[in-house]
Amino acid sequence: MAKPVSQRGFARERVIEAALSLFAERGVNGTSLQMIADHLGVRKAAIYYQFHTKDDIVLAVVRPVFDDMARLVRIAESITSAESRRDATISGFVELAVRHRRIGSLFYGDPAVISLVRSHQEFEDITDSLRELLIGATHDVGTRVAITMITAGVFGSTAEPHLQDISDVDLHRFLLDCAQNLLRAPQSAATPSG
Amino acid sequence: MAKPVSQRGFARERVIEAALSLFAERGVNGTSLQMIADHLGVRKAAIYYQFHTKDDIVLAVVRPVFDDMARLVRIAESITSAESRRDATISGFVELAVRHRRIGSLFYGDPAVISLVRSHQEFEDITDSLRELLIGATHDVGTRVAITMITAGVFGSTAEPHLQDISDVDLHRFLLDCAQNLLRAPQSAATPSG
Repeated sequence: MAKPVSQRGFARERVIEAALSLFAERGVNGTSLQMIADHLGVRKAAIYYQFHTKDDIVLAVVRPVFDDMARLVRIAESITSAESRRDATISGFVELAVRHRRIGSLFYGDPAVISLVRSHQEFEDITDSLRELLIGATHDVGTRVAITMITAGVFGSTAEPHLQDISDVDLHRFLLDCAQNLLRAPQSAATPSG
Repeated sequence: MAKPVSQRGFARERVIEAALSLFAERGVNGTSLQMIADHLGVRKAAIYYQFHTKDDIVLAVVRPVFDDMARLVRIAESITSAESRRDATISGFVELAVRHRRIGSLFYGDPAVISLVRSHQEFEDITDSLRELLIGATHDVGTRVAITMITAGVFGSTAEPHLQDISDVDLHRFLLDCAQNLLRAPQSAATPSG
C-alpha cells in the first residue's frame, strides 16, 4: 500500500497520525520509531528527519490540545462579565476535550505521557491560565470543588475506555449537561455539621 | 531521635507511613529504600526484611484503598434496591476517596504509581466490581456519563494539589453535593439536536 515518498518532504501530519494510531493500539511504551516508519512504509530516516526522539512525537501529538486551550484562554480573557467568562470557558473546555478525545485516551493509557507533558513549562502555563479563568477570584469552597469536579470529570470521561462506544455528539451533550448542573446547583451552605 | 529497634520486628506500618511522607514530598521516583531507612533511623536491612523492592512498598501504601473499596463492594452488593445500592456505593466512594486523600495525591503526582497498580489484577478486579455496581444494568447514556463524571471528578478532586487547603470535612461535603447533583439532575433527553 505504501508508495515511495521523498524522505525530506515526508509530511509531519502523517507521522503524527500514524503515531496516534499505534499509541492507541500498543501504548507509547510499546511503540518504536521503527514501527511508525513500518506503518507508513518509509525508512526510519524519514521519521528522524522530522522528529529526533519518540518524546518529540508525543509532544507533537498533544500540542494541538494545548494550542486549542491557549486559544480558548485568549477568547475567554476578552470577555468582561465574570459569569459569561466562566460559562464560555467551561463550554469551550468540554468542546475541546471531546474533540481531542483520542488524545485524551492516550493520557489515560500511558502515565508516562502525563510525566512528559508536565515537564514542559509551556504546557503547564496554559493549564495554569485555564485554571485561573475557571476559578478566577472565587474563594467559595463549594464552587472550587464543583469546578475541579468539572475539569477532572470531563477529562476523565473523554479518556474513559468504558465510554468509548458513546458518540462525540452525545458525549459532548451529556458532559455539558453535567457541567451546567454542577455550576447551577446551589453550593450547599447546608448541613453545617458539628 | 531514632531509638534502636529490633531489625526483624520493625513495624510494617511505620515503614508505610514513612514511605508515604517521603513519596508526598519527593515523589516515588525521588525516594529510595535508603531514604526511608534514614527517615526512620534504621538500617536498610530492617526495611528489606519487610519489603524486597520499592514497588512492594508502593503496593502496601495503596492496598488500604483497595481493601476499603472491596469492603464497599461487599456491603453494596448486599443491598437489594438498585437505587439504594447505587446511592450507598457513591456515598461510600466519596467517603473513602476523601479518607485516603494523601494516597490519592500520590497517584496524581506519580504516573508510575498508576502503571504499577494497573498491572496488578486483584486491584483491577476490585475497580471493575465497583464500576459494575455503579453502572449496573444502566444503558442510559446520560447516567453512564454522569457516573463517570462522579468517579473521575471525585478521585481527581481529592488528588488535586490546588484543593489541598480544603479540610476533609468540607471536601467530603461538597463532593457528595456534587455527586448528588449529578445523579439527581434530569438526564437531558432535551435538545434533540439535528
